[in-house]
Amino acid sequence: MPVIRLDCTKCDRTFAPGAVLNLCTSCSAPLFARYDLERAAKTLRPEALATRERSMWRYHEVMPVEDPAQRLSLGEGYTPLLHAPRLSEWLGLKRVMVKDEGGNPTGSFKARGLSAAVSMAKVLGAKAVCLPSAGNAGSALAAYAARGGLEAHVFVPKDIASLFLMETRAYGAHVETVDGLITDAGRVCASLAREHGWYECATLKEPYRVEGKKTMGYELAEQLDWTLPDVILYPTGGGTGLIGMWKAFEEMETMGLIGSKRPRMVAVQAEGCAPIVKAHAEGQPDAPMWPGATTHAHGLRVPKALGDFLILRAVKASGGTAISVTEEEIVQGTKELAASEGLFAAPEGGACVAALRKLQSAGQVAPDESVVVFNTGTGFKYVENMTPLW
Amino acid sequence: MPVIRLDCTKCDRTFAPGAVLNLCTSCSAPLFARYDLERAAKTLRPEALATRERSMWRYHEVMPVEDPAQRLSLGEGYTPLLHAPRLSEWLGLKRVMVKDEGGNPTGSFKARGLSAAVSMAKVLGAKAVCLPSAGNAGSALAAYAARGGLEAHVFVPKDIASLFLMETRAYGAHVETVDGLITDAGRVCASLAREHGWYECATLKEPYRVEGKKTMGYELAEQLDWTLPDVILYPTGGGTGLIGMWKAFEEMETMGLIGSKRPRMVAVQAEGCAPIVKAHAEGQPDAPMWPGATTHAHGLRVPKALGDFLILRAVKASGGTAISVTEEEIVQGTKELAASEGLFAAPEGGACVAALRKLQSAGQVAPDESVVVFNTGTGFKYVENMTPLW
Repeated sequence: MPVIRLDCTKCDRTFAPGAVLNLCTSCSAPLFARYDLERAAKTLRPEALATRERSMWRYHEVMPVEDPAQRLSLGEGYTPLLHAPRLSEWLGLKRVMVKDEGGNPTGSFKARGLSAAVSMAKVLGAKAVCLPSAGNAGSALAAYAARGGLEAHVFVPKDIASLFLMETRAYGAHVETVDGLITDAGRVCASLAREHGWYECATLKEPYRVEGKKTMGYELAEQLDWTLPDVILYPTGGGTGLIGMWKAFEEMETMGLIGSKRPRMVAVQAEGCAPIVKAHAEGQPDAPMWPGATTHAHGLRVPKALGDFLILRAVKASGGTAISVTEEEIVQGTKELAASEGLFAAPEGGACVAALRKLQSAGQVAPDESVVVFNTGTGFKYVENMTPLW
Repeated sequence: MPVIRLDCTKCDRTFAPGAVLNLCTSCSAPLFARYDLERAAKTLRPEALATRERSMWRYHEVMPVEDPAQRLSLGEGYTPLLHAPRLSEWLGLKRVMVKDEGGNPTGSFKARGLSAAVSMAKVLGAKAVCLPSAGNAGSALAAYAARGGLEAHVFVPKDIASLFLMETRAYGAHVETVDGLITDAGRVCASLAREHGWYECATLKEPYRVEGKKTMGYELAEQLDWTLPDVILYPTGGGTGLIGMWKAFEEMETMGLIGSKRPRMVAVQAEGCAPIVKAHAEGQPDAPMWPGATTHAHGLRVPKALGDFLILRAVKASGGTAISVTEEEIVQGTKELAASEGLFAAPEGGACVAALRKLQSAGQVAPDESVVVFNTGTGFKYVENMTPLW
């Protein structure tokens, strides 16, 4: 197995890989997988990558599953980084690009994390997996569980769009709707997981989803010829992708693939649920539970993120910021992305366009800076959420 | 421009490229683009392809737009060809693979054809484009028109799922709903196109959509290490993909990329709209209008295809067949694909799984033959159609 160690992200505990582990057993913080990067650097070279498979598993030296036969893959990752000339012009900028995650299996970036996590769950001997979800993580868990012949249990807020229930159940998963938000669903899930011995794959509650998500950072670098953009706007719910990309940048620098320059990381949230924005503005190291969370961008409706301190740390270290946008601005941003470039994005993607417009107006992004906006999923799965607001 | 000539598919007329052309001006049959394949063969080599971009434009020697700056691209094509071990087992076969087109821009294989067609429309000076559609072609036309800053007009049956209207209008297209089927929408579209001078991009009514679609054939060969499967099941409405793949096989053989062996091409239709199945069974060279066409797989609800004779010709020449499935079987096939492999397919994809089950039962596919099933789009766009039947 390429993973040589699991490190706690908060205390100094380390763990041997090869066991079914969730959080640090001392301090309950997330664990990070570590690799022998000196060894990985010998083969993970730009010229070698050029001929590799078109999925996130192309970076296999720094991925948890070594044997291709053990990977549960549906072709996740290696998504397009689209130059967006018309959107750039509309925004008064010159080099806006969109990392479009909507074409992933199950229609969102969640496929990356769950491909890695469910593969590892199976490798480590789990028979059943579970998580709480706003929708997309649940369907991705269910899809990879189907692919691997595992049992899956998904817990979702009861106001979820009906499409997610149909999709997730079609994959054969057991879906339970919970009165409340994803945090409430998380409590029910954790309790039943303990009772039945299911492996919990909640955001950052096991070490491998972030390994799948970090590949977005590898792809950006590869697609930009081993440079990074000046600014990255990332819609931040649980924040695994932002945390993962930050980890990827560090790994890539250690391996000599990129230099020490980092993009300014911008965590984008909705005004109705902006715990990271508030904590960042106040200079706090972590973000307390946001009361009464609400937004139609359900992936952003995460009132308390387990990795809040990791998100805030990366945003601060990068010289970036955290910014919130209104529901109306999200709708506007989503529409702009469609009309300018032909991308029917999830509202989370629209939120990033809206946030970029605000940063541009405030002079926080210069016209000639290179900017990557993340669209984390297809809009098709959000039509029920969007319809009343459009 | 790589295209050296346009050949009529029915009579012996040929046309010079470089003009805005629709059908053959003598016999009103579709036109095929021809390339200097001897020249193309010099650079279109397996080893050269290994390092090319991850989109259908990787086969640029045999694509209509030479200058990358003139391609309207959203990352279409180069989709996964997934081995489906669990589905294979369920079907009593050994080597079933799924060519999953659901991750394309706009969520379907229509992106390929319209990326090529709208790019060429722009290159040739068109300011406005139009077509009739069951849904996916219209949204793809609109998306690429947005990307290129062209005006788009889309004509759809009025019972279309509301998602398509929202999506297509978000891209800025004018959408008109028409009482009737796609053929009725086609008449309205053609008449307004003449009146306003819009460039008509209806299926096979211009020569370049099929050039985009044919790349599915190139990809199959590349993904199978320059061999072809024994059997291909393709959901057949207008049939451009089947026609395109057949053209691709011929081009590839001429260039020495593959041998003379061809897969048996199976055209899959719905019992409620099976003009090709009927014509094939009767040994007719073309397929008369199917009265009262109905199926929830709207992409198959094409009562009369302009390229019927080309579909029938390819099916026959390949030793393949045409087969229809019921609505219930389509639902069952769609569910099987989800539960076995984690793919939430369009009903057109489900229809192919259902058809494969029938062929297997009838002994028309041997257990160890390699079979490719096409899923032509994501199921997310069909939830409104599927819900009453699931």
